[in-house]
Amino acid sequence: MKFIYTQPHDWTEQEKTLAPYIDHCKQVVATSDYNALEASLCLSSDKEILAQVDEMIKKKKTNELKYIIVIGIGGSNLGTKALYDSLYGSVDVLTPDRYPKMFFLDTIDPKANTTFLNYFDKYITNENEFSISIISKSGGTTEPLVNAEILLGHLKKQFPNWKDRCVIITDNNSKMWDEGKRIGIDVLGIPKKVGGRYSILSAVGLFPLAMAGIDIRSLLKGAESMRSLCISDTSENHARSSSIFQYLYLQEGKAIHNSFYFHPELESLGKWYRQLVGESIGKDNIGVTPMVSIGSVDHHSMVQLYWGGPSDKTTELVYSKKQSSCLVPSDPLFPTLSTTEGKDTAEIVSAIQKGTALTYENQKQPYFEVVLDDINEYEIGAYMQYKMMEILYLAHLMKVNAFDQPQVELYKIETRKILVKK
Amino acid sequence: MKFIYTQPHDWTEQEKTLAPYIDHCKQVVATSDYNALEASLCLSSDKEILAQVDEMIKKKKTNELKYIIVIGIGGSNLGTKALYDSLYGSVDVLTPDRYPKMFFLDTIDPKANTTFLNYFDKYITNENEFSISIISKSGGTTEPLVNAEILLGHLKKQFPNWKDRCVIITDNNSKMWDEGKRIGIDVLGIPKKVGGRYSILSAVGLFPLAMAGIDIRSLLKGAESMRSLCISDTSENHARSSSIFQYLYLQEGKAIHNSFYFHPELESLGKWYRQLVGESIGKDNIGVTPMVSIGSVDHHSMVQLYWGGPSDKTTELVYSKKQSSCLVPSDPLFPTLSTTEGKDTAEIVSAIQKGTALTYENQKQPYFEVVLDDINEYEIGAYMQYKMMEILYLAHLMKVNAFDQPQVELYKIETRKILVKK
Repeated sequence: MKFIYTQPHDWTEQEKTLAPYIDHCKQVVATSDYNALEASLCLSSDKEILAQVDEMIKKKKTNELKYIIVIGIGGSNLGTKALYDSLYGSVDVLTPDRYPKMFFLDTIDPKANTTFLNYFDKYITNENEFSISIISKSGGTTEPLVNAEILLGHLKKQFPNWKDRCVIITDNNSKMWDEGKRIGIDVLGIPKKVGGRYSILSAVGLFPLAMAGIDIRSLLKGAESMRSLCISDTSENHARSSSIFQYLYLQEGKAIHNSFYFHPELESLGKWYRQLVGESIGKDNIGVTPMVSIGSVDHHSMVQLYWGGPSDKTTELVYSKKQSSCLVPSDPLFPTLSTTEGKDTAEIVSAIQKGTALTYENQKQPYFEVVLDDINEYEIGAYMQYKMMEILYLAHLMKVNAFDQPQVELYKIETRKILVKK
Repeated sequence: MKFIYTQPHDWTEQEKTLAPYIDHCKQVVATSDYNALEASLCLSSDKEILAQVDEMIKKKKTNELKYIIVIGIGGSNLGTKALYDSLYGSVDVLTPDRYPKMFFLDTIDPKANTTFLNYFDKYITNENEFSISIISKSGGTTEPLVNAEILLGHLKKQFPNWKDRCVIITDNNSKMWDEGKRIGIDVLGIPKKVGGRYSILSAVGLFPLAMAGIDIRSLLKGAESMRSLCISDTSENHARSSSIFQYLYLQEGKAIHNSFYFHPELESLGKWYRQLVGESIGKDNIGVTPMVSIGSVDHHSMVQLYWGGPSDKTTELVYSKKQSSCLVPSDPLFPTLSTTEGKDTAEIVSAIQKGTALTYENQKQPYFEVVLDDINEYEIGAYMQYKMMEILYLAHLMKVNAFDQPQVELYKIETRKILVKK
């Protein structure tokens, strides 16, 4: 991964502010301190968690495995979905015979639920074909509980050994943990201080991803190598640069951050980052509104606003250095219209990327570039670790608590009142 | 469709400002004035366009039709995708045997292109199984030209009558129109003054949607009935209310508009609206940044920011009155955790909707509610027409040109320079 940016002005002061906090993070890593708020930093090198996941995989993986179902919402599924979609999910409908496929039950949606049950009835004939992860950090989130009750209540009639095909992933010793043990469903834990939005490198992400054949060792290695950079006092500390960059422009009123991915399959990665930004630094009446754009889809939808509208955004352009190749035929069907005959589409896409960066430059809109070596587990792992650390540092600069989300309770209280009234 | 809002304060002045413009729009409708900038308002009742589309459908529809391929980007596909995804697309991967399926080739993506060609080779055996729409308003957009050359160049080897399976949809008498005629591909026109982002009710949307079995008469009827309301001087002129609402809050610095849909299948509808907002009113250094949220996915991702962060947004809560039904089993598998046994999920979803609206109210965040009677062609047609007129009125209040997009050219110029250099 490369990180390319122009410093808006001297930021020695912010580097000084961050120095002791980066030292603290370094310490958390060095001592593998799971009591720290920054406990998630310990995950990428945690051999014990990996061993637990490996053991569970061994127990659950079958040769017939075709359907990996993830029941979870927010921090319990966004990271997993980001990885799956980056590698396979975005073209799932075009690769109907590629397995295993992952399915995500997140919100409660009667139509989607019914469709899913019908799918199950129609296509799944053997219990070794599926694996279900039920994921809730607290163990009490409404959506996964409802989705689990509906799905499991339905399939237990058909599959007597359904419990063997499930794994519960929840806080070590939560009520759901106890319940799983009691009724005989295997359980994997989440370290107490690792919040949902920082949990992708725990069993939350590792177990279902490995079940789907995704290389979690490579994911962890990418994250670990990025972690080394981002606790260092070097120019390669991308999390530091990126957080100061965003902080300085936020002070100038640029309170929207646009993650502009030039690969449609990275959209879910952007949605994972949205939660990270939204919940970690959106509080105390300040915050950054994250948005996701896709090149070149949004060139035909949103760039007019980006370059013609108010200057209220920072932008991150993300692309992969390595592109697959696909040639435009050299004998065009529309000769009077064609300007790209014989060209490789990778070259066209690359020109659009460069043209876009140049336009941001010319329009004097603040942007930085993240160049991935490729779209694979290692690079996505590195990117996610960079982003999680960027947000820790940004929260520190903004003097907000990166680890709570107090306002999320508000609608839950109102919703509960309404449900009880009925 | 119901529209529920609280007027922030007296808006007689804005109603006065809008009155002559609404009269003008009324006039455009009454005279079916395709020379007006607001020509798109004539589409919902245009019998001639409908007859042309019907005739083309008759020519192209086959009993074996399974794959409707739309090659187009921005205004050429976002509306069609919005409708398809609302009705079928969001669960396509769970309904592999439901046909016809629509596929969208929008951006140039070597990986997606290759996957698509492989899919074609593997699953399509007969030319009556597919229909391809090549859509470009100007006739010169790079992405659809590249995608068309790649796809058609590939399949012409296998399907000698490939031209019969294609329809070009472009500006009446554009260069692409001529080229289509010349090489023997059927062509449907787009009225000159109907811009891409306002073109869903022209052949751009109608032809591919009808090929996919979507009820375009109902779509048009919904739009037409909404148009009547939105040129009226009544409280049922939702476009007027909605535009003034947004305008007043924009004056207070709330420059982000959050479309919060409580149905995951409406996400693409939100993406259609993004373009409408982004390109129509994002200029002259002012504008509104549109964003799309999905309930309850974003309750676990973004509401912390919405209720705890800066007060820089207006919010639109969109839900359907009619919900399918899906029961939570009354004998829970996790008895100590369950709080919803025996309940209908529709009831839970409705409680979350109400709890969310109440929280916006309690947090004094400006919001309005759009209640669809159902998620079907008629209601989506009405919603889209309401939104297109809202944006016309909002642009009028903001004194910006709702019909151009000058800054989009910027990256095209840079991109072309790079491609030529090579």
